Amino acid sequence: MRFFAFTRDGVAGLAVRTDTGLAGLMAEDASYTGSLDDLIRSGRLAAAGKVLAAGDAIDEASVTPALPFRRAGKVLCVGLNYADHAAETNHAPPPYPTVFVRFNDNLVAHEGALVKPAASEQFDYEGEMVAVIGKRGRSIPKAQALAHVAGYTLFNDGSIRDFQMATPQWTLGKNFDATGAMGPDFVTADMLPEGASGLAIRTRLNGEVVQESNTAQLIYDVATLVEKLSAVMTLEVGDLIVTGTPAGVGMARKPPLWMKAGDVVEVEVEGIGVLRNPVVAE
Amino acid sequence: MRFFAFTRDGVAGLAVRTDTGLAGLMAEDASYTGSLDDLIRSGRLAAAGKVLAAGDAIDEASVTPALPFRRAGKVLCVGLNYADHAAETNHAPPPYPTVFVRFNDNLVAHEGALVKPAASEQFDYEGEMVAVIGKRGRSIPKAQALAHVAGYTLFNDGSIRDFQMATPQWTLGKNFDATGAMGPDFVTADMLPEGASGLAIRTRLNGEVVQESNTAQLIYDVATLVEKLSAVMTLEVGDLIVTGTPAGVGMARKPPLWMKAGDVVEVEVEGIGVLRNPVVAE
Repeated sequence: MRFFAFTRDGVAGLAVRTDTGLAGLMAEDASYTGSLDDLIRSGRLAAAGKVLAAGDAIDEASVTPALPFRRAGKVLCVGLNYADHAAETNHAPPPYPTVFVRFNDNLVAHEGALVKPAASEQFDYEGEMVAVIGKRGRSIPKAQALAHVAGYTLFNDGSIRDFQMATPQWTLGKNFDATGAMGPDFVTADMLPEGASGLAIRTRLNGEVVQESNTAQLIYDVATLVEKLSAVMTLEVGDLIVTGTPAGVGMARKPPLWMKAGDVVEVEVEGIGVLRNPVVAE
Repeated sequence: MRFFAFTRDGVAGLAVRTDTGLAGLMAEDASYTGSLDDLIRSGRLAAAGKVLAAGDAIDEASVTPALPFRRAGKVLCVGLNYADHAAETNHAPPPYPTVFVRFNDNLVAHEGALVKPAASEQFDYEGEMVAVIGKRGRSIPKAQALAHVAGYTLFNDGSIRDFQMATPQWTLGKNFDATGAMGPDFVTADMLPEGASGLAIRTRLNGEVVQESNTAQLIYDVATLVEKLSAVMTLEVGDLIVTGTPAGVGMARKPPLWMKAGDVVEVEVEGIGVLRNPVVAE
């Protein structure tokens, strides 16, 4: 299933995407399934997909995309996880996943405006794929790891580079309000190759390809990330693992390439979709 | 007010601490006020304090301490924020607060067992004071910052040093399950000096003082932290700012001093209380 969350006239809705378009329900409908946050926690994704598919046709042009997930307990972002990107930022490929944290509440939805803060001109893009945890676990063996992943979505890990690099930890530069994006579709794992491996990933800025790689190039693939992260902490249903960005970030270019008001940035992963956001000034 | 959360026979309770002991209510009581998470979000702390003070006497010896907060949206930990600790870890005093993130769900309550993971022998203590956000805000001027702080509690930022230092970001070493502690009391700001400054802070391991400083030694004081963090992100009610640890951590000693099963660690800040935890092996 491919799920798509949205609002229409301020009311939440959820749809499934098929070859013929969107079908779904509004929160005011008696048979509404609840949000993706609710469905993943209650293990009702598959059942809800059938209910939504039998719902009303939804005209995508008349609705506003919403974040697929708004209540992730942990948004675990993996840095330096494509060999080419680790090289361009002068980091040796890491001996263990390098993990930092974003907060769900500074993410905007597909088509939502990314806000370049007044405090910085160094607003950079990072196209990424997200693995969404669907089954709780600690110390998960790699062989069972993919059974804990419910599906995948897209992410733009928008970064304020001068703040990110001002101190040894990246947290501030990664968590300005409205500087990251996620969505539009949440695609269940059964729709994609095992571990969502082998998928083309690219980022476009104003239509020009600025990052291009393949999820087969992940240093730590999705199963290994689930294994390594769960060796440390319990992964809860709804946690998000943001798997890292390939080469081509604006910071590493000469001269650097920063996002500015009026730009449009797109993150695309083959089989998952396209996440598109305009950039505005604070 | 000094609030103290607990459970008795598995039922949640909340009390206020006065010179004569604890008075409070159980979740099963008709006039129960709700948890501290609920009260701080609804702005009912002061009113609830009065209701609790008129409640039943609570025998502290017969209850189990609980975490004061279990649903913080953000646990923002400040590193290298005492000049003496920045020096002992060979970090220059930072030009901006160094911020990393812990998750609320790997914290244990006062008297709860801290778990030394099987994967590491390098389990270190870090005694800290926590400022709890009581009023939402972004870009908060320093002069108004303390009006956004509802009160204070104690924290042990237990750290798995080999994992913390294995990669450029500290997240994994700071987020092993059951390696941090918070509590016992949540003390409203009016009970303490402005910004909780000038308070003795110390950590004891098995009764021996291993960290000793004063909150007046913070490089970025509480008002400045609120100003600087809110320049980046909206601070929400219930967010926690963990203000940093002074010199004396086990990692910086020669030879290093690690916590092991059977140890007891205590964090004390003058006027806030003592947070005590035994250490067990995974």
